Amino acid sequence: MNIEAKLLEGNKRAVARLITLVENKDEAAFELLKKLHNKTGNAYVVGITGPPGAGKSTLTDKLVKRLLDEGKKVGVIAVDPTSPFTGGAILGDRVRMTGLSTHPNVFIRSMGARGSLGGISEGTSAAIKVLDIYGADYIFVETVGVGQSEIDIVKNCDTTVMVMVPGLGDDIQAIKAGIMEIGDVFAINKADRDGAKKTAREINAMLDYSSKDWRPPVKMTIAMNNDGIEELFEGISEHRNYMASTGLFETRRINNTKNEIVELVKHRVLEHLFDNAYNEQLINSLSVNIVKRETDPYTACDEIMHNIKKN
Amino acid sequence: MNIEAKLLEGNKRAVARLITLVENKDEAAFELLKKLHNKTGNAYVVGITGPPGAGKSTLTDKLVKRLLDEGKKVGVIAVDPTSPFTGGAILGDRVRMTGLSTHPNVFIRSMGARGSLGGISEGTSAAIKVLDIYGADYIFVETVGVGQSEIDIVKNCDTTVMVMVPGLGDDIQAIKAGIMEIGDVFAINKADRDGAKKTAREINAMLDYSSKDWRPPVKMTIAMNNDGIEELFEGISEHRNYMASTGLFETRRINNTKNEIVELVKHRVLEHLFDNAYNEQLINSLSVNIVKRETDPYTACDEIMHNIKKN
Repeated sequence: MNIEAKLLEGNKRAVARLITLVENKDEAAFELLKKLHNKTGNAYVVGITGPPGAGKSTLTDKLVKRLLDEGKKVGVIAVDPTSPFTGGAILGDRVRMTGLSTHPNVFIRSMGARGSLGGISEGTSAAIKVLDIYGADYIFVETVGVGQSEIDIVKNCDTTVMVMVPGLGDDIQAIKAGIMEIGDVFAINKADRDGAKKTAREINAMLDYSSKDWRPPVKMTIAMNNDGIEELFEGISEHRNYMASTGLFETRRINNTKNEIVELVKHRVLEHLFDNAYNEQLINSLSVNIVKRETDPYTACDEIMHNIKKN
Repeated sequence: MNIEAKLLEGNKRAVARLITLVENKDEAAFELLKKLHNKTGNAYVVGITGPPGAGKSTLTDKLVKRLLDEGKKVGVIAVDPTSPFTGGAILGDRVRMTGLSTHPNVFIRSMGARGSLGGISEGTSAAIKVLDIYGADYIFVETVGVGQSEIDIVKNCDTTVMVMVPGLGDDIQAIKAGIMEIGDVFAINKADRDGAKKTAREINAMLDYSSKDWRPPVKMTIAMNNDGIEELFEGISEHRNYMASTGLFETRRINNTKNEIVELVKHRVLEHLFDNAYNEQLINSLSVNIVKRETDPYTACDEIMHNIKKN
């Protein structure tokens, strides 16, 4: 039986295999995704992001359990933008879901950054499609961090949960713009810690200044004790209902798709026009000359561009 | 008097002006950087990175004070990869250096991510050059986060200090690869908190497995109380001396320069070949059709690539 048929009947090994093929930029895998695109669009995609130490994995774990109890089928993609690794390697360390991974209705996968052209948000988009075809009702995309690559990743999602934690101090100001841009629902996790109320107040104060129509709810959670998980899930569902009733759901999916194809084209442009013209020797010798102050980076760049145009 | 002469005599307003011009991609500003490239290479560039809440700004503040007391000239670039803002806007919130910014021997600047083509590491490289020409002995590049964009930013640095904090939990595993890749010196800040020794043990255990010749020192600091700052500075100086004595200093600068010109060329390629061919209307209509499942992202990408090649 081929991978397509296995995938359509919800075979987890077929899911794993297809994601690996996509990560390896296998042409046939993309052909299959093209063919099966009409089987996608049914899963609800939830992003879980926030600074290291916020307890995102535990929170995701509890949300997944809650959905499994309800009889739902769930996919989890744990993305490490700084890690070159993929597959099972990190999973053991990171996602404390060992009890879940053997459950027939859940598929868990960790993904790392592959190759120098980035492409992690491209890989995540593709993995979401595979899990969607697999039949997941919900797909969680968990990513550590609040940098630009994390923002790009959660731009694949329908609802993004921003997990905060007491004790971020002044840095909460520094990451404010990123937080405000992508958080649809906020969780203040480890809410039994000192400063949880202060953090909630700060987040609420930031949200008060936002001009968005949707006012993100701020939920207090202690994921470890399963506290606040139901309330957090309600927050996700409220956002989902709000988007459905206002027509924003479709707008968002169209915008996410725009981002996706723009990223795809950028990578393709760089692959074709930069990689093919990439001259390691030239770049090395120019770099040496720059450090010797015989030339400078901007002049070197002009020279490389000239070469690219010539080819 | 023109900006060049003012810059060379260490005028801070000229520094600010030139960085702004570079951020605005002003051609004349790049011509000036080309011309003055032989005035660069003297400043020692130190990256300060780590997760939100680690206390990087306070730590940078104390390191800067220590160097000013010694009569050094210092530049600080605070980078917010998730923020679209630049200049003074964030500075008030973030960098608690109000006492320092009026000091004649220090220039402090915050930078945000400008434009969709990224370019933040490009902007940081250029700002480093300006501060180098200005005559800084040390330049600190402070960036929040541990994602890919932060890694790209500290690839401009001679020594990178990774600031950790107790309580990161399992996420320390998830960010391990990024930490190991870029940390030359480690600071466990807020070392009076519970779990500081455990965090130091975990970091040391990770470093024990590293195959690098340089073994990064792990320093305990309480930046708020100025504790451990001297030891941390010693760690930076040890790394500097190690690199100088082994010849790795030049190798690193050549590698940093390679990264810089590769990034420059990539942005230039995308500017010329993607932006010029960017057809908003086509991308919008393709996105609508993808969401309707009339086409798929990969086929859409093929169509856009076909258009780009035709032009």
